Amino acid sequence: MESATKTAAQPVVSFETAPDRYKHWKLSFDGPIATLSMDVQEDAGLSPDYRLKLNSYDLGVDIELADAITRLRFEHPEVHAVVITSLKERVFCAGANIFMLRGSTHAWKVNFCKFTNETRLAMEDASEQSGLKFLAALNGICAGGGYELALACDEILLVDDGNSAVSLPETPLLGVLPGTGGLTRVVDKRKVRRDLADFFGTVAEGVKGKRAVEWRLVDGVCPTSQFRQRVAERAKQLAGKSDRPAAGPGITLSPLNPQVSENAVRYSAVTVEIDRDKRIATLTVAGPGEDQPSTPDAILAMGDRFWPLRAFRELDDALLRLRVNEPMIGTIVVKTTGDHARALAVDEALITHQGHWLVREVVQLVKRTLKRMDLTSRSFFALIEPGSCFVGTLFELALAADRSYMLDDPEQENTIALSGMNGRLRAGDASAGQGRLRAGGASASPAEARGDHARAEAGPLKMSNGLTRLQTRFLGEPSRVDELLAHDGPFDPREAYEAGLVSFAPDELDWDDEVRLAIEARAALSPDALTGMEANLRFAGPETMETKIFGRLTAWQNWIFQRPNAVGEKGALTAYGSQSRPEFDFNRT
Amino acid sequence: MESATKTAAQPVVSFETAPDRYKHWKLSFDGPIATLSMDVQEDAGLSPDYRLKLNSYDLGVDIELADAITRLRFEHPEVHAVVITSLKERVFCAGANIFMLRGSTHAWKVNFCKFTNETRLAMEDASEQSGLKFLAALNGICAGGGYELALACDEILLVDDGNSAVSLPETPLLGVLPGTGGLTRVVDKRKVRRDLADFFGTVAEGVKGKRAVEWRLVDGVCPTSQFRQRVAERAKQLAGKSDRPAAGPGITLSPLNPQVSENAVRYSAVTVEIDRDKRIATLTVAGPGEDQPSTPDAILAMGDRFWPLRAFRELDDALLRLRVNEPMIGTIVVKTTGDHARALAVDEALITHQGHWLVREVVQLVKRTLKRMDLTSRSFFALIEPGSCFVGTLFELALAADRSYMLDDPEQENTIALSGMNGRLRAGDASAGQGRLRAGGASASPAEARGDHARAEAGPLKMSNGLTRLQTRFLGEPSRVDELLAHDGPFDPREAYEAGLVSFAPDELDWDDEVRLAIEARAALSPDALTGMEANLRFAGPETMETKIFGRLTAWQNWIFQRPNAVGEKGALTAYGSQSRPEFDFNRT
Repeated sequence: MESATKTAAQPVVSFETAPDRYKHWKLSFDGPIATLSMDVQEDAGLSPDYRLKLNSYDLGVDIELADAITRLRFEHPEVHAVVITSLKERVFCAGANIFMLRGSTHAWKVNFCKFTNETRLAMEDASEQSGLKFLAALNGICAGGGYELALACDEILLVDDGNSAVSLPETPLLGVLPGTGGLTRVVDKRKVRRDLADFFGTVAEGVKGKRAVEWRLVDGVCPTSQFRQRVAERAKQLAGKSDRPAAGPGITLSPLNPQVSENAVRYSAVTVEIDRDKRIATLTVAGPGEDQPSTPDAILAMGDRFWPLRAFRELDDALLRLRVNEPMIGTIVVKTTGDHARALAVDEALITHQGHWLVREVVQLVKRTLKRMDLTSRSFFALIEPGSCFVGTLFELALAADRSYMLDDPEQENTIALSGMNGRLRAGDASAGQGRLRAGGASASPAEARGDHARAEAGPLKMSNGLTRLQTRFLGEPSRVDELLAHDGPFDPREAYEAGLVSFAPDELDWDDEVRLAIEARAALSPDALTGMEANLRFAGPETMETKIFGRLTAWQNWIFQRPNAVGEKGALTAYGSQSRPEFDFNRT
Repeated sequence: MESATKTAAQPVVSFETAPDRYKHWKLSFDGPIATLSMDVQEDAGLSPDYRLKLNSYDLGVDIELADAITRLRFEHPEVHAVVITSLKERVFCAGANIFMLRGSTHAWKVNFCKFTNETRLAMEDASEQSGLKFLAALNGICAGGGYELALACDEILLVDDGNSAVSLPETPLLGVLPGTGGLTRVVDKRKVRRDLADFFGTVAEGVKGKRAVEWRLVDGVCPTSQFRQRVAERAKQLAGKSDRPAAGPGITLSPLNPQVSENAVRYSAVTVEIDRDKRIATLTVAGPGEDQPSTPDAILAMGDRFWPLRAFRELDDALLRLRVNEPMIGTIVVKTTGDHARALAVDEALITHQGHWLVREVVQLVKRTLKRMDLTSRSFFALIEPGSCFVGTLFELALAADRSYMLDDPEQENTIALSGMNGRLRAGDASAGQGRLRAGGASASPAEARGDHARAEAGPLKMSNGLTRLQTRFLGEPSRVDELLAHDGPFDPREAYEAGLVSFAPDELDWDDEVRLAIEARAALSPDALTGMEANLRFAGPETMETKIFGRLTAWQNWIFQRPNAVGEKGALTAYGSQSRPEFDFNRT
């Protein structure tokens, strides 16, 4: 991972790495079990301003972890379980580095926590969607972010050496919250009783031994002498639950090698162009330039050049760079180009072969990338123009956007289309809505709609709320989802607008002004209010553990990350590790 | 409502009022329809620092609204629908007063929004639980908090006069969020499409006429000439959905008349004692001092002296005073006193007669008060000592607390008990768990437990998450709820501890030190981190629109309420109404 220091607090970051370049993790293999061992190099942080003692981590350490999880999915289908442990004596992980946090800007803290949260959720996604199971083998103290990493695993085994404990010392020591889902996972995933969680969350020393098991904080404890054997047994057991293939080969994820210039990042299928004066980026995704393979064997043979894998890896990297390296860009204009038939043929292949391990991985990577977009605190406006390729999977980019504008010019062909990747009707329901789109935009009353349930089968590209983007969009009219999925062929601008699939469909006379004014108006608004507004409007419908982490927990953490009691001159985060004790304003808010 | 100015920003507030003292609302009756008309007196705000123009409101205006809703429930059972409208020409309501917000401390803003949110939710509660329906009759411009008030109604009718619109101008004009559930209700209650909501949330002028209906923002529009008649028709229709009694009489809610001194507030059944040095309040609730009536007629005759109504009205007032007038009190020690049998007999009467309108109202008021406690950002520690009365409804106070300590001294009797108010087994399931408490605190593995479902019937005292406190407490072991509800008679300290009903049960040797140290340790922690931690631990399990409003939306709003882009010298909230335009730091976070 390259990184140059931009300011002390905010290095320019690349999110690409590979096992042979890892500084902080060792990845080893033993048949169906991989071991990912944390061994953080103290002096190899992203910035020289702090030392990563006791397996504490910064963004660089987490980028390697995220890379390892992704590579295990694509490059090692024969791996069925992963043991996460540490190579340090009596220390598993001390959590996020406090001196790094203390020296960081507010925005950096927020982006750091967001990325680490996405990495933990990617582990749970690998377990649920790809049968790659995780065992946290806590061979020593496990504090804060260290315990939050363990909470993201399927099972937690803690060494019982009289000393090693799990803990969330953020509140008692630092005056902040555990920032990586800890509180949510304790009560919602592990279902620890709230009063015990309250006690646990306020004692810096944490909980160990039998009590940690009784309180459901860990699944088991084990004396040092038996620890290694017990870890091996449990890992084998977890591996037995996997439905991954018995043997490889996997495919290799090669470097993306984008061309980075002052105002652009260019990949093979994705381009980002930056207009710093207007604080706008234009993100363009090109559909497949040639026909793509349609059988698992041919897809395997094509490897990481298979268009959806390549395009969405690039899109993921582009979004991460925008988040961290371009904080002043407020609006991202989303465009697509390419051949509709070719893009829809790819979707067909993905749906037909989704039972194949590699196809499954490709679909899940597309899903995670789109979720990364949902969680990116920038405004997205999709522009659907002649020559664009908003069909099927790529139409999800328009659905993920805060608004979409589709040019309605009778002189130029301009269509969108759905595919099985957006959802499918359940067998037997196909006749239900065939072509019968309701006239008018919102005919069902809220009261009627609340009782309804869609008959559509959720597509594979679910949002964090557990629904597809179409389901979320038409929460008030679930039957419309069925009708749209039953629609044959493309939608022209008028049809798309009437179906509610695009926000606005200006004609050729209005297009330039309407789009320009909308983008200019957006750029003038308070960036903080927009972040809050989008975080509330994008996730209608059910909440899940995942949305709770990004909604409730993250929002509170961001609040606390600004409070003088944490980050002020005498705040707890500022005072930590210095001689002085924190001084609080005890007003409760 | 009395109020004296403490500081310019933070007046001392009483939450008691009555219709004959309302300054800002007129309440009138016409058979089953009541009309609540907003007519805010500009110069009668809680502070002289701002003028409440255009039906804008401050906390004082909302206290009257909350009072009116409660009185309609208790004093006017014959009212089946309420029309909310305005007496100002062409103005419904301009929302929260911006100059009030601008001049307020962060804590005041947060508490103001919390109370107004609770009032809106109390309207929805009255509709769902008591069949009291609400019609928002928007006779003029309806902006920000004005529209949020309308969103809390069952139906919204907007006058179509070419000018009147609904709007949420907070983001474009003030750089903050609509603070009273607006964003959540738009997409989750009214199920407005997220892209339309995005547009709506960024245009200060809002949306009017046909488009407002098509976008689901209102249920209907109507020309001025027909407005009055249409309101009457719709109100009649709504009233027809009510299951309230055809005629009264109701009961009168008389003033609570607490004795307020420097360090205490004393009501008939509730006492609050303040220790400002230690930043602790002790809240004591006394059970019924004499036998209470057990039939609806006798309860009606007793009126507001009926113990549960009296005690929980007092508790509600005490919590509100603590929130707003005692911001430095960090920990609230909760105690009870009284006779178990008498308190359990009250629960029996409430359960037996919950179909009666008044009993229903009493139960719902108890429920809302307990929810107010869940949402109070102070730490609650329940102390269960000999002489206490933590049984049934009053045991909910211990369940609502962050922790409970129960003295285990063989020399002194000390028990707790459950009642139907905590939940009941479904018919036919009573044998399931009779007496068979599992040994050990947490025997079900998280994986096992996740699949399970409790067979317990939810009691009436549901939390915002839609579950009872027992269900939330044992999210990981739903069958334990059944077992506990099947348990006959009281639990002694050992049984209560083993059942997981109390957090800790120290013996007489440890009690004083353990309790004292726990309270002292709590008082030393960062109040902000505690607020965030408690907000995340108290609401495990499902999220509802209500928890979304208090979790996701409120947390983001609190974040924004601290950002320089809103409240800094050149922030949008600061600049509003002055000559200067806001200047933003355009870093997106």
